[in-house]
Amino acid sequence: MRELLGGKGANIAEMTRVLGAGVVPAGFTVTTEACVAYMGEGRFPDGLEDEVSAAMGRLERTAGKAFGDPEDPLLVSVRSGARESMPGMLDTVLNVGLNDHSVEGLAARTGNPRFAWDSYRRLVQMFGNVVEGVPGERFERAIKEAKADRGVVEDTDLDAEALRELVTEFQGFYSFPEEPAEQLRAGIRAVFDSWRGERAVAYRRLNRIPDSWGTAVNVQQMVFGNKGPTSGSGVAFSRDEVDGSPQPSGDFLPDAQGEDVVSGVRTPKDLAELAEWNPEVHEQLMTILRRLESHYGDMQDTEFTVEEGRLFMLQTRSAKRPAQAAVRFAVDAVSEGLLDRAEALATIDAASLAALLHPTFASADFEVLARGVAASPGAAKGEIVFTAKDAIDAAEDGREVILVRPFTEADDVAGFHAAKGILTSEGGKASHAALVARGMGRPAVTGASDVSVDLAKRTMTVGDVVLHEGDRIAIDGSTGALSTEDVPLVSPGVSEEFDCVLTWADELRTLGVRVNADTPEDAAKGIAFGAEGIGLCRTEHMFLGDRQPLMADVILADDDASRDAAIDRLRPLQEDDFEAILQAMDCRPVTVRLLDPPLHEFLPAPGSLPEGSPERARVAALQEANPMLGTRGVRLGILMPDLYRMQARALFAAARGVPGCVLEIMVPLVDYEREFELVRAAIDAVAAEEGVEADSYSVGTMIELPRACFLADKIAEKADFFSFGTNDLTQTGLGFSRDDIEGRVLARYIDVGVIDRSPFETIDAPGVGEMVRMGAWLGRTTKPDLKLGVCGEHGGDPDSIAFFNDSGIDYVSCSPYRVPIARVAAAQAAVRKLDQPAS
Amino acid sequence: MRELLGGKGANIAEMTRVLGAGVVPAGFTVTTEACVAYMGEGRFPDGLEDEVSAAMGRLERTAGKAFGDPEDPLLVSVRSGARESMPGMLDTVLNVGLNDHSVEGLAARTGNPRFAWDSYRRLVQMFGNVVEGVPGERFERAIKEAKADRGVVEDTDLDAEALRELVTEFQGFYSFPEEPAEQLRAGIRAVFDSWRGERAVAYRRLNRIPDSWGTAVNVQQMVFGNKGPTSGSGVAFSRDEVDGSPQPSGDFLPDAQGEDVVSGVRTPKDLAELAEWNPEVHEQLMTILRRLESHYGDMQDTEFTVEEGRLFMLQTRSAKRPAQAAVRFAVDAVSEGLLDRAEALATIDAASLAALLHPTFASADFEVLARGVAASPGAAKGEIVFTAKDAIDAAEDGREVILVRPFTEADDVAGFHAAKGILTSEGGKASHAALVARGMGRPAVTGASDVSVDLAKRTMTVGDVVLHEGDRIAIDGSTGALSTEDVPLVSPGVSEEFDCVLTWADELRTLGVRVNADTPEDAAKGIAFGAEGIGLCRTEHMFLGDRQPLMADVILADDDASRDAAIDRLRPLQEDDFEAILQAMDCRPVTVRLLDPPLHEFLPAPGSLPEGSPERARVAALQEANPMLGTRGVRLGILMPDLYRMQARALFAAARGVPGCVLEIMVPLVDYEREFELVRAAIDAVAAEEGVEADSYSVGTMIELPRACFLADKIAEKADFFSFGTNDLTQTGLGFSRDDIEGRVLARYIDVGVIDRSPFETIDAPGVGEMVRMGAWLGRTTKPDLKLGVCGEHGGDPDSIAFFNDSGIDYVSCSPYRVPIARVAAAQAAVRKLDQPAS
Repeated sequence: MRELLGGKGANIAEMTRVLGAGVVPAGFTVTTEACVAYMGEGRFPDGLEDEVSAAMGRLERTAGKAFGDPEDPLLVSVRSGARESMPGMLDTVLNVGLNDHSVEGLAARTGNPRFAWDSYRRLVQMFGNVVEGVPGERFERAIKEAKADRGVVEDTDLDAEALRELVTEFQGFYSFPEEPAEQLRAGIRAVFDSWRGERAVAYRRLNRIPDSWGTAVNVQQMVFGNKGPTSGSGVAFSRDEVDGSPQPSGDFLPDAQGEDVVSGVRTPKDLAELAEWNPEVHEQLMTILRRLESHYGDMQDTEFTVEEGRLFMLQTRSAKRPAQAAVRFAVDAVSEGLLDRAEALATIDAASLAALLHPTFASADFEVLARGVAASPGAAKGEIVFTAKDAIDAAEDGREVILVRPFTEADDVAGFHAAKGILTSEGGKASHAALVARGMGRPAVTGASDVSVDLAKRTMTVGDVVLHEGDRIAIDGSTGALSTEDVPLVSPGVSEEFDCVLTWADELRTLGVRVNADTPEDAAKGIAFGAEGIGLCRTEHMFLGDRQPLMADVILADDDASRDAAIDRLRPLQEDDFEAILQAMDCRPVTVRLLDPPLHEFLPAPGSLPEGSPERARVAALQEANPMLGTRGVRLGILMPDLYRMQARALFAAARGVPGCVLEIMVPLVDYEREFELVRAAIDAVAAEEGVEADSYSVGTMIELPRACFLADKIAEKADFFSFGTNDLTQTGLGFSRDDIEGRVLARYIDVGVIDRSPFETIDAPGVGEMVRMGAWLGRTTKPDLKLGVCGEHGGDPDSIAFFNDSGIDYVSCSPYRVPIARVAAAQAAVRKLDQPAS
Repeated sequence: MRELLGGKGANIAEMTRVLGAGVVPAGFTVTTEACVAYMGEGRFPDGLEDEVSAAMGRLERTAGKAFGDPEDPLLVSVRSGARESMPGMLDTVLNVGLNDHSVEGLAARTGNPRFAWDSYRRLVQMFGNVVEGVPGERFERAIKEAKADRGVVEDTDLDAEALRELVTEFQGFYSFPEEPAEQLRAGIRAVFDSWRGERAVAYRRLNRIPDSWGTAVNVQQMVFGNKGPTSGSGVAFSRDEVDGSPQPSGDFLPDAQGEDVVSGVRTPKDLAELAEWNPEVHEQLMTILRRLESHYGDMQDTEFTVEEGRLFMLQTRSAKRPAQAAVRFAVDAVSEGLLDRAEALATIDAASLAALLHPTFASADFEVLARGVAASPGAAKGEIVFTAKDAIDAAEDGREVILVRPFTEADDVAGFHAAKGILTSEGGKASHAALVARGMGRPAVTGASDVSVDLAKRTMTVGDVVLHEGDRIAIDGSTGALSTEDVPLVSPGVSEEFDCVLTWADELRTLGVRVNADTPEDAAKGIAFGAEGIGLCRTEHMFLGDRQPLMADVILADDDASRDAAIDRLRPLQEDDFEAILQAMDCRPVTVRLLDPPLHEFLPAPGSLPEGSPERARVAALQEANPMLGTRGVRLGILMPDLYRMQARALFAAARGVPGCVLEIMVPLVDYEREFELVRAAIDAVAAEEGVEADSYSVGTMIELPRACFLADKIAEKADFFSFGTNDLTQTGLGFSRDDIEGRVLARYIDVGVIDRSPFETIDAPGVGEMVRMGAWLGRTTKPDLKLGVCGEHGGDPDSIAFFNDSGIDYVSCSPYRVPIARVAAAQAAVRKLDQPAS
């Protein structure tokens, strides 16, 4: 019922069932449907007020008190509850139902005027802040002054009279409605409205929660932690929320309501102190935490209140936890018999595992130039660049850079991909730079306010130190530190527990996981992380750097003879490249993609060549209006067949040096079966010339164009395997040039609700995903055992992996650091698929 | 049986049935399958030689003569016969079966030694040329010398002795096989080989005949037109082959074999002279032509031989004819009762009708600077440019240019699109420039050898006249003339007969035909040619020229206020544009596409702005790596919503001024239903503000991205109509940037057999075509009566029109001059569809 009741509402209902009504205060839930209707029409949907009244009537009967009764008022909390927990992002109003009359009744009835006035003070303060938008500081300032006037330190030292005066002062800030029904109505409306508040929207972007869901509202009878020293409020996790170790952890404040615990006004006590304060309550809480954990099969995050020695549980939910805690919990839960392996795996957010795989500084023994906010974990080093474009250019040249900006905007996002890390002088943990960097797994330090960035001069200054574009810096997004020293980085190992989880994942998953690797180093890294082969070895990087002049000779050759000579000079180099990678993979399959990018990428910009020179003219003639859709991939292979023949020859020669290697040659950008046929014939001819046996290698194709998906049955007639290139398929299927669209346009699209995440991050299931399925299905109508892989970046994204798992794909391939994530995600997908009824 | 027997073989078989065996020489056909097998394996397929022997045996029994009999030899012709006629492109060997012995026997048996030796001379000459590759000139020279030696003029004046000497001389040129079976085998092989000859390949490219078909070989008993003055050979058309008028036409030569008629060695006589020469034969031929025409229901092109006063028909086929003849025949055939309207329409090659619609020079009263080959019909004028790129740039600036080159290559093809006409100094009617220009319907003059083109200096020189880049010239591709005068052009009218054909087409077709028009002039032209509405009115041209600075103000505005002001300045101009077009269309529907291209297209190149200027930086920031896949279409409309709102406001204001107008607003480049929804909501809001009734306009979308085809059911929920933008759908579906791919890559693809024509010319049915069908089908699952159009250039291509007709499309839209072609093609498609059994 989470969709209708929200997570909190559903959990309260279920918790009541598990723990009994005595432990959970009674209440009811206004559904998310009502919120959605309210958002659409700008007013409460018809009938809502009547239903709320009826529910309040039932609550009054359960409680034995009447809402607004001046003698013995029923008080309620009005709390948000979205389908997925959005802690602290939505609004809450407590103690609803009090007014100038009933506060006196409550004081008399409980014999505790301080409690009554404290509760009323809280209502008037919270209502003013949340419903009426009065800045919180005005209330805080008034409380501070009141304490100063009376020479006391803690809020709890303010007596009933002081609180009464505060209430009067607060009521001067705005017009407080005395009528309880009006308070309730306004409270519900405020919670609805908070769904569209700035904080909430930003949080949803980051966590990919659709705007359309809306929030439920939970109305619950108040229980009071502010009734004096035998009362209190707290939060408790069923296990340590940082490292996942088995002892429960949490915070607790005597004589307080829940918001005091999280607001930081007073320093909370930990659960050990709760045991001293009230051993019975502590014992009862421990029992409840165990019951809840065992009931939900997951680590719990709860809120509780102790009212005059009696424990009430206000809510419970699965605990958000960092990756190391998630892994620890999964392993412990299995050894404790709480969960089986599949269930334990399901409790892990696969994407979060990236945090365990970020490089870190090898030592803390370096001079810190400045500190900022630790906005996205991991350490990084590189040359300073000041624009996204420079970052992209540098990355294309194979240089490592840190993108430094005062702050970032949507237009800078393309630079995030290209940079090793991000540094901003402004903004905090929720700044654009922080959100985007975390989303992408890029280390980031934000809000380094000692750093002054001058974009015009292209300098960054810290005190006397002036750094220029191209100077090297190191940042640590886990600590916020920034240094000009060349601090060594270490790649993280895989912990014993993580390794255990990965072993289970391998037992459970059916989807293969390979690595995208162009170098022996990446290949080795992939194996270390558990890759079963290389799914994509790009050959274009092998023609850059020192070899670029050789490649330029090939492209700009005047005649066939000099072109052949230039190609011949490249061949032994390619052979060495391939041999090293095949060696590194130690008899695991290696899919090598023949040269793919447009030729001009290997040439200098025409503007950099002498005006009027024939070289410039020739380079200019190779420029294309839309290189993404231009002369590249197999088109190149057909226009310049000697290039592919050279690559095939180098591959066969390399394979000869590595007995037992499994060579898969992949032809990119195929549209027509005949394109593939021509290249395959050329490769087979080279093999025959070289005396290579026809069954010692296979030749397949990338499926990365919509047409290829429609004609996959034809293409499969000649191809040994398919690998879906979902990056290019997304670009062509959606008509999106990633470089041009991902920043400004997709950010706007997320804002206006066209999409909830970039289709380059998670596969666009109804569009591009269906193209993949069509290609897979048609390919298998021709060859039922056709091997199908995915080698786009989606191969490392858990949601996409689930989609591919359900689409009959044999393996995904992703960057080395995503391999463990893919293994876990693949296992989760396999388990979910088993759980689903066969269709 | 054309596929197996080839056109000639099938026609001979059928003609024998119609006219009786006495009129058609007996023979047999070696199938295209044998040719295909021969091409694949490089040798005759197993069993072929046995089958040929058996067939020869049957032919010997029918003829009562034996092949190779030294006394009375059976002679045969060995002729090609492709599925579609390729006149003159494939090889033939006649008089096969003669040798040094049997020639004497033939001389004795016929009592006509001259005839025997003439036949033998022909065999040895033809075999040497066709089979052995001896250059034809060597034989011609020897004949010329023999005539000179004997002081005679005509070949027929050479007597038996002279011919015997020639044979001996010819036999010295190569080793002639005396064995008749070997002659036959070599002849068949030579015909097969000629399928892959250069001429034949070039012809197939131009006429889109697949390389894979192969040719059949017809072996037929020889009949002899060279038996003296009562014999002869000729070709006859059942009607005038130039203008289509009803009297048969043709050429005839007494005492000759067929090749003499076409080779031009002797001047042939016309059919009137045939009537004088042998009235009975003439009468019989006229009767046969009528019978054949009535049997085949089409104008016939025949070959005949008269052997000693007896008429033999060697072959018949549908006559190739220019457009005016095709139209005339169709009209006459209906009035004669030969065909009904649908059948008559089917005899017209719709694509050829373009020739009737080319502009021509209004007068011949101008100075001709030079003459070249009339390579592609139509007249054109414009500024001289020397490179394809300059042509494209000029076209983008709205300038009209003539592309001038020494010769053209594949890389120049993109310039053909952009230029109004092509002029080359080299090459003839079959040059690359001529083939491509005719294929595209661009006027071209080739091989203007008096013109000297200097690409480095960018000049063309004719005698003393030196013309520079930018100077204006006029060319007439129908006459080969070239002038520097500003000769006025006239758009062709539609002849009475053409109009009649178009009227029938309108009766028969179910597919609507609209025009793509951005100006009132084009709109009027479209109506004149019979368009039923505007299917695509692009608005981007309205922002170029004088208005470019206004548009630049919009794009480069510093703030919202100045942007709004700039947009406000554009609005009245847009309103006038729209009102003029709506007026011109006189209550016919007008589909206006909102702004589509990327913004930088309206701005100067960044390089043209001062270095370091903020304007340059801003323009540079708008440049895109792949503008085709970038910030354009609806993406622009969502990023800069005021632009679309302005266009909507201008449209509604314009519509108010044109009572009864039918306004359809079209949103380009939609991927997601939500994109459309947002823009539609904005348009509807503008309509409401302007007091426009909601049912007085419709809002639909281009379907031009593969994703949109997959999600068409969703998009149809909000859209009133779809128009398939097949140009962009081809670009994204195939991953082809037309500008980058159409020249070099597609030309190579045609050469190596990947495709047989450009997918931008004729819809790629199995790929892009299936996407259209998927989009159409899904759209109609949501809205069964959803209106579906096609507005890509394919809308004017007959083959594509047939595909769309069969895909449930409601209308196509094309450029004004293609409208009549589309009407005819749509009618033909409708008739074909009716003739097909329901599936």
